[in-house]
Amino acid sequence: MTLYDIPTPSAIIDADIFERNCARMKQKAASLGVALRPHLKTGKCLEMALCQMTSPQGPATVSTLLEAEVFFRSGITDIIYAVGITPAKLPGCKALIREGCSLKIILDNTAAAKGVSAFCAAEGVTIPVLIEIDSDGHRSGVRADSALLLEVAGCLAGGAQLAGVLTHAGDSYKCSGADCCAMAAENERAMAVLAAERLRAAGYAVPIVSVGSTPTAVFARRLDGVTEMRCGVYSLFDLVMAGIGACSLEDIALSLLVEVIGHQPEKGQIITDGGWMALSRDRGTASQQVDQGYGLVCGIDGKPLDGLIVCSANQEHGIVTRRDGGPVDISRYPVGTRLRILPNHACAMGAQHPFYRVVRSGMDVKDTWKRFSGWYEI
Amino acid sequence: MTLYDIPTPSAIIDADIFERNCARMKQKAASLGVALRPHLKTGKCLEMALCQMTSPQGPATVSTLLEAEVFFRSGITDIIYAVGITPAKLPGCKALIREGCSLKIILDNTAAAKGVSAFCAAEGVTIPVLIEIDSDGHRSGVRADSALLLEVAGCLAGGAQLAGVLTHAGDSYKCSGADCCAMAAENERAMAVLAAERLRAAGYAVPIVSVGSTPTAVFARRLDGVTEMRCGVYSLFDLVMAGIGACSLEDIALSLLVEVIGHQPEKGQIITDGGWMALSRDRGTASQQVDQGYGLVCGIDGKPLDGLIVCSANQEHGIVTRRDGGPVDISRYPVGTRLRILPNHACAMGAQHPFYRVVRSGMDVKDTWKRFSGWYEI
Repeated sequence: MTLYDIPTPSAIIDADIFERNCARMKQKAASLGVALRPHLKTGKCLEMALCQMTSPQGPATVSTLLEAEVFFRSGITDIIYAVGITPAKLPGCKALIREGCSLKIILDNTAAAKGVSAFCAAEGVTIPVLIEIDSDGHRSGVRADSALLLEVAGCLAGGAQLAGVLTHAGDSYKCSGADCCAMAAENERAMAVLAAERLRAAGYAVPIVSVGSTPTAVFARRLDGVTEMRCGVYSLFDLVMAGIGACSLEDIALSLLVEVIGHQPEKGQIITDGGWMALSRDRGTASQQVDQGYGLVCGIDGKPLDGLIVCSANQEHGIVTRRDGGPVDISRYPVGTRLRILPNHACAMGAQHPFYRVVRSGMDVKDTWKRFSGWYEI
Repeated sequence: MTLYDIPTPSAIIDADIFERNCARMKQKAASLGVALRPHLKTGKCLEMALCQMTSPQGPATVSTLLEAEVFFRSGITDIIYAVGITPAKLPGCKALIREGCSLKIILDNTAAAKGVSAFCAAEGVTIPVLIEIDSDGHRSGVRADSALLLEVAGCLAGGAQLAGVLTHAGDSYKCSGADCCAMAAENERAMAVLAAERLRAAGYAVPIVSVGSTPTAVFARRLDGVTEMRCGVYSLFDLVMAGIGACSLEDIALSLLVEVIGHQPEKGQIITDGGWMALSRDRGTASQQVDQGYGLVCGIDGKPLDGLIVCSANQEHGIVTRRDGGPVDISRYPVGTRLRILPNHACAMGAQHPFYRVVRSGMDVKDTWKRFSGWYEI
């Protein structure tokens, strides 16, 4: 079965590229002397997780409790749930820990720290906690040099056990090029290590010092003082990562298989059955040097065509033009022509699909990998 | 069970509002003397479909073959698959028709028309075909006044039976206010009727004259010559529709229940567990007069708070600020506070969720409605 034989639109993973990406990142972590704790939120897929991880038990990172539950039931035991915890999510964490999951949670404020401590006391459970560090003003976390860091640590008591610090250089997504990413990586490292050292100086054990984002993981030059790095989108890569310089177009393992359903001859536009429902609404390249619209158009062989992008998208329609706005020679793309679209953001595009079709050696469809979605089961 | 008792993030449908929206649109269609053929792509949910439709058998509109299959298995028989057909999708259409589905397809070019005719001849099947009309240069379709219209009709032969014309005033989404939408509705009507009349003058029967989009359906003043109208997002409404003036904020039936997970006190920002994975990446209000970010923040009762929006979003984090960029009084929103976010686009937000939690009388969770996703089953 080849890409000519399956329905469109279909999310396609090129397993050869995916496996190469995973192998490279394992090698990178090993060369830096840190553990690799891949983020499984990109794929939400067991087959992908097993290739990303350095062992079938982990370590791994997740972004929802459902990911923790699903992956734990598949044998993954060493998990960090890397989104700030709230009291309402603690019963779910407790259930996993009681079943044998080495689940670690994160928080960045005294209210959450007190809440976890009170929960652990009331329920008689031990929950390892990492304090989230804000290394670049991106989003959440306490500053490594703040008084708040020690206050938060001071609110952890009893079963709420300080297990380390964690940061995510989210602003590295704004970088362009190796030097910028390497600087972001060094800052991420330095902030995590500073936080760990301040906590240690105050008498706390800080076994885990966790950093990570794909741009910093790709370009980090040293990670002294760090114990592990986290990253996820490196496994598939995407146009945003290519725009940053963290990968080349040839490293992008995810694409959308679409079919030409019509044209607007006067406008020189091709219309395909790949709309935003299949590509996602992500427009991450809009703020980069090269705006790829809703995605870069390739032939069915996955090789980019001459400057064609999905310039706009409706729910089930993708409109293809040249990036320069000029008309496409539509005679080259009759109704029924199959194309592949490289996505802006692999995490977002993947989330639109219940499964991936897996190709090897170019266009041979060899497997189907399921992915899950949502936040909890009913 | 209330909204305090379910996990976050959760997609919430206020059934009282949803049912009112459905009833109003039925009444509107009846008052205009046309059938209502609701689009089921917004919900992808049987409970929603049954409330939207004027009978359990339809009529209905879908955007994918999977929608047609799932809804047909649930008893809906009168279906238009309103995305331009390609040869690869015809076997799926044939299977549904053979099972008794009154499935109609659309196309806008001679290649597709010839393909359907050849398929029908080879397979001995009859497939009703609507010609898609481009009434406003929005996307796909042939112009009502073009020679191409008659050429396409001329390519339909044998089992490929002309059943009518169909248009979608997609550019009505760029309108603001009743007059603009009413003009778009009149143009949509006039173009569909012109196409039908030209086909009739050429000797074709044109039983179906189908128009529709939510803004034009809400504001249409007359639909003479039209047989049916299609619309979907009116059932839930959203911020884009409110920005157009097609509804008020009180008509929006869909929201995202989130919880405060932290703050950035120095920036006056609230961080919630409702990121783009739960809200979608849709930024439809960005091009409107009032940019609502990734969504408008309400209290748990669904009533908008004072000018708070989700200003940015990561996969599982939503960052809340004031629309004017000023700091939020974060002391009013401690960790664990529950909020509801009105979405930019109901179709896009819904697609991020495997099910909806259904509330009545404000905050009482009364039901769970499943929705489906994807394009085909494996």
